[in-house]
Amino acid sequence: MCGIRNGHATAHLDTTRSLEAAITIGELGEFGLIAAMAARMPRAPAAIVGIGDDAAVLRVRDSRVVASTDLLVEGRHFRRDWSGPVDIGCKAAAQNLADVAAMGAVPEALLVGLAAPSDLPVAWALDLASGLAEEAGRAGAYVVGGDLSGASQIVIAVTALGTMAGSDPVTRSGARPSDIVAVAGRLGYSAAGLALLEAGLEQPADAVAAHRRPQPPYDAGPQAAALGATSMIDISDGLIADLGHIAAASGVLVDIETARLDIGASLIAAAKALALGPAAAAGSPDPMAWVLSGGEDHALAATFPPGAEIPTHWVEIGRVREGKGVWLDGMSYRGEFGWQHFR
Amino acid sequence: MCGIRNGHATAHLDTTRSLEAAITIGELGEFGLIAAMAARMPRAPAAIVGIGDDAAVLRVRDSRVVASTDLLVEGRHFRRDWSGPVDIGCKAAAQNLADVAAMGAVPEALLVGLAAPSDLPVAWALDLASGLAEEAGRAGAYVVGGDLSGASQIVIAVTALGTMAGSDPVTRSGARPSDIVAVAGRLGYSAAGLALLEAGLEQPADAVAAHRRPQPPYDAGPQAAALGATSMIDISDGLIADLGHIAAASGVLVDIETARLDIGASLIAAAKALALGPAAAAGSPDPMAWVLSGGEDHALAATFPPGAEIPTHWVEIGRVREGKGVWLDGMSYRGEFGWQHFR
Repeated sequence: MCGIRNGHATAHLDTTRSLEAAITIGELGEFGLIAAMAARMPRAPAAIVGIGDDAAVLRVRDSRVVASTDLLVEGRHFRRDWSGPVDIGCKAAAQNLADVAAMGAVPEALLVGLAAPSDLPVAWALDLASGLAEEAGRAGAYVVGGDLSGASQIVIAVTALGTMAGSDPVTRSGARPSDIVAVAGRLGYSAAGLALLEAGLEQPADAVAAHRRPQPPYDAGPQAAALGATSMIDISDGLIADLGHIAAASGVLVDIETARLDIGASLIAAAKALALGPAAAAGSPDPMAWVLSGGEDHALAATFPPGAEIPTHWVEIGRVREGKGVWLDGMSYRGEFGWQHFR
Repeated sequence: MCGIRNGHATAHLDTTRSLEAAITIGELGEFGLIAAMAARMPRAPAAIVGIGDDAAVLRVRDSRVVASTDLLVEGRHFRRDWSGPVDIGCKAAAQNLADVAAMGAVPEALLVGLAAPSDLPVAWALDLASGLAEEAGRAGAYVVGGDLSGASQIVIAVTALGTMAGSDPVTRSGARPSDIVAVAGRLGYSAAGLALLEAGLEQPADAVAAHRRPQPPYDAGPQAAALGATSMIDISDGLIADLGHIAAASGVLVDIETARLDIGASLIAAAKALALGPAAAAGSPDPMAWVLSGGEDHALAATFPPGAEIPTHWVEIGRVREGKGVWLDGMSYRGEFGWQHFR
């Protein structure tokens, strides 16, 4: 399962495995690779048509389907020397499944496109498939289809499909003044892990593991929807940036009470390790900056009506007010936190 | 509309346009580019949630959803000097929408991932968006979501979603001995167009246009499903290769009567142009080879029960028999026709 693990996927060095490691996807060819990757993926019980036809056909609970797509590009979203293929598969699945959960939906299926150089080892592609299938399984979903192509750089394109479990979808635009702002899941761990890897460090291990394999709180999405969440978002660009998206879409101000944010012990340990480490000259690392701007933990942020009983997985971190933008502790916030591509 | 056009997209050289052409996607940034691309895409009337949230939410006709994903990689599936961005958008949409139609489903929506270098002109990305939206419109579908990322090479990842219009999905595995084999749509035009472009030729224009913008017969898919088609496939690897997939999945032999295959006049003209052209030394081009192995017209192939009245868009081209593989005119076929990636 795609939970936290210290380090990369365990190698199973039996004969088949050694053969897979030795041959490239170019040598195996497209159809052989599809068959071998499909063999790593359990068949979806709810699929009317699964992997191997022109398209997959799925049953959904009602007449609504939820769909989201994301890209992972080598060198931008992952590095092969920092993450193993199982990790990368988990991460690719997680970031899409979290988008579906952030609508209040239950993840059901993934479609995966893999573009890769022909000298990629078959073993790498198969472990990627294992990671995708494992993380899908953690969310209760299955890989139901995909596509392969040659390319100069690895690009993984994942589409997640989900189904509504009775509630209406929770968008970014429903937050109202006086609503409670809450988060589910960890913040800042992935950013701390990335900073550690950049400095050549591997400890604290849970921060590094969080960067390699985020653990979105999938159940918290449908739970929030069922309990009347007025808006919800997957935190992929950073807490401030993503609450900014809710603020903009809802026409409100989101005020974060920073004292309520959990600065995990590993974040403090990571900051200390970095301050003492070989790259210490790069400036003093700030755990609060990771919590406010770290984008790849795929925690969920949501707003609930005033007086709502905040559900189990969720922690209150602030309030919605009249106005615009995101404030910290009642004060206008100026600074640039969050991630934009191409910048 | 994404029909056949001679040459590239017309340039609209007003002021806005010149500005877009001058600035790059790196200068505009991710969020600005998303907004500008979304502005090129009409809002889906059936979308409960469209572009701009964590995921799209769509209404489907019953409790089934059809989904397929495909990648287009620069230098492999398209060349920017041979095809304009509107063309490439149309082609990216068409090849996915055709997969949905090949299940007998009605295309409803597209999700689009674009990975591109930051020096890509904004105008190129916007014209790609226009092409995607136009071809989706030709199939009755809409772009409902997407993702953007930086990359060293352009990769376009499209997922198409569709809905069943009463019938059951038509897979590759239902062909039975004595069934009629039929095709809908053109064969060989895209391959001829590619050969012309490779030789530096632009005539016959309809073959070149067919390579730039395939025109899958979307309606023929649900029509075949409603009329009892026993198997169906989108011809993306070539007629022989894709009928080979039906033969393998159904455990039958498919026998093509080559005299029934339509060798379009433009294919003959293209072969003549190539035989006389500057690259003539490369060997004599064969229109029948384009028809049998050309893979990017996205025609549909299907089988119908014996005695079935073949619907309007479809042309009978052979029979299903007991056995294995694909035969031509009652004879075992040896040769390699069709496309595999990484090979």
